[in-house]
Amino acid sequence: MSLFAFRPLLNIIPCRLFSQTCILPYDIDRFKGARVRIQDWPDDAKIIRNSLSISLEQWRKDKLSSVWLWIPIEKAHVIPIAAELGFSYHNAEERTAVLNQWLLPIKSMIPRFATHQVGVGGAVLHSKTNELLVIKERIRNLEIWKLPGGSAELSENIADGAVREVFEETGIRSKFESIIGFRQAHRYPGGHGRSDIYFICRLSSLTDAINFDANEVLDCKWIKLDDAFKVENPILHRTAEQLLFGLKHGFEQSIDFRLEKIPSIVTGINFNFFTRSIKSNK
Amino acid sequence: MSLFAFRPLLNIIPCRLFSQTCILPYDIDRFKGARVRIQDWPDDAKIIRNSLSISLEQWRKDKLSSVWLWIPIEKAHVIPIAAELGFSYHNAEERTAVLNQWLLPIKSMIPRFATHQVGVGGAVLHSKTNELLVIKERIRNLEIWKLPGGSAELSENIADGAVREVFEETGIRSKFESIIGFRQAHRYPGGHGRSDIYFICRLSSLTDAINFDANEVLDCKWIKLDDAFKVENPILHRTAEQLLFGLKHGFEQSIDFRLEKIPSIVTGINFNFFTRSIKSNK
Repeated sequence: MSLFAFRPLLNIIPCRLFSQTCILPYDIDRFKGARVRIQDWPDDAKIIRNSLSISLEQWRKDKLSSVWLWIPIEKAHVIPIAAELGFSYHNAEERTAVLNQWLLPIKSMIPRFATHQVGVGGAVLHSKTNELLVIKERIRNLEIWKLPGGSAELSENIADGAVREVFEETGIRSKFESIIGFRQAHRYPGGHGRSDIYFICRLSSLTDAINFDANEVLDCKWIKLDDAFKVENPILHRTAEQLLFGLKHGFEQSIDFRLEKIPSIVTGINFNFFTRSIKSNK
Repeated sequence: MSLFAFRPLLNIIPCRLFSQTCILPYDIDRFKGARVRIQDWPDDAKIIRNSLSISLEQWRKDKLSSVWLWIPIEKAHVIPIAAELGFSYHNAEERTAVLNQWLLPIKSMIPRFATHQVGVGGAVLHSKTNELLVIKERIRNLEIWKLPGGSAELSENIADGAVREVFEETGIRSKFESIIGFRQAHRYPGGHGRSDIYFICRLSSLTDAINFDANEVLDCKWIKLDDAFKVENPILHRTAEQLLFGLKHGFEQSIDFRLEKIPSIVTGINFNFFTRSIKSNK
């Protein structure tokens, strides 16, 4: 759809630097939403209110689906005015808040902002001894032996996150092999009401000399898989069971979700796709 | 750690209704962060700036790790003042913005807000004919046959989300069986720079009369698994391969990540945990 389909309907000329009431400058996204990005909002509340009002009127006439405002943090005085006119926060991070408003007389189809944090745990098997790498952490008042791991960074692949976290916490370099389990948890601590998916990645060690980060970790060691059951930690028990089974029957043949590349039909870009290998599994 | 460990250090009495400069009222979280929740911020910028300044000074003296402000949308005039004093957005949704600031002279340990949306696709097999349920959707300029599915809601389990989306889009009721694959994608369309994990859930049909939602879906039908390969959609091909393999060798024995419950060691609450069943897989 051409942007010009909407422009001729404007009855007041849009202005990018505004010092008087005007239709706000905007682009139209592929969901027919108006996207307003202004760095230099005026200080005058009346100009902001009047400009937002006549712009909303125009956008409704043009049957746009929604409006999005990107507001720099130092211009947040705009926000209460926008809120009076029906806007609310969609998201905010660092120095920008994003407000939006649904304009059509049907239920909003705007997806909520991201709902999950991704955690990555490394089940690192020693490449020679098949021992498992574990760390001790203090969580609340408990000292717990567990798999090394942490939060994946923004736009980080699960496999890369697991290898990175293991190295940062333990000093051990490792290679990603597969995903052998994951759990979903809601309202996780520190998650601001969001949820968490924690992936257990099977990694094989490339080095074996531990050099743990004493800021994050109380202790770190290699343990025999059978000794994992002596530790009080249900998810560690389940992981050790899987690993013992995999050692006996072949990991790929029994417990792995393997990493494959599959192209997106829309963009052609390869995704990381995890599934059972069926070639090796007759 | 007791909250009182910090209170005696305050040299100005905290006030909840403030009309003059004061230490802001706060609680301390388990990461030694000060949490400030005020509904009735004053209009006067000078009172806000001075109160935030002396509070920050106190919190630094008390060696608190961080400060968090919950600011109602109608009080967003506070935000530019907080930004001048070193705060930035951690997140915002609907009518509340959350700003924070790290106080210690080491690298911030505050996790970023949620980074992923979760998508759920339903690979529904007809319980009698083993046919696969597919829908046609318009994505950009393409009409694509694909699995029914959509975004999981906030705090929704993957399994529940897949069953719900299949019903909403196709009218088919189904039962969750397992997860047979998932992909991770970064900077997905409409994700505001966030990432997406899309889980393919194996479902078995409980009903078979299609009643699709014409607002969301162009068409819907049951197809033979062999015919899935005639459709141009790589992830659908891969899913059909998995399903054919599972039908031949037993789903649990070959392609499933099964849902188990595992208690958290910290809270004792059961998590949803997905992994290979090893009982049936000798």
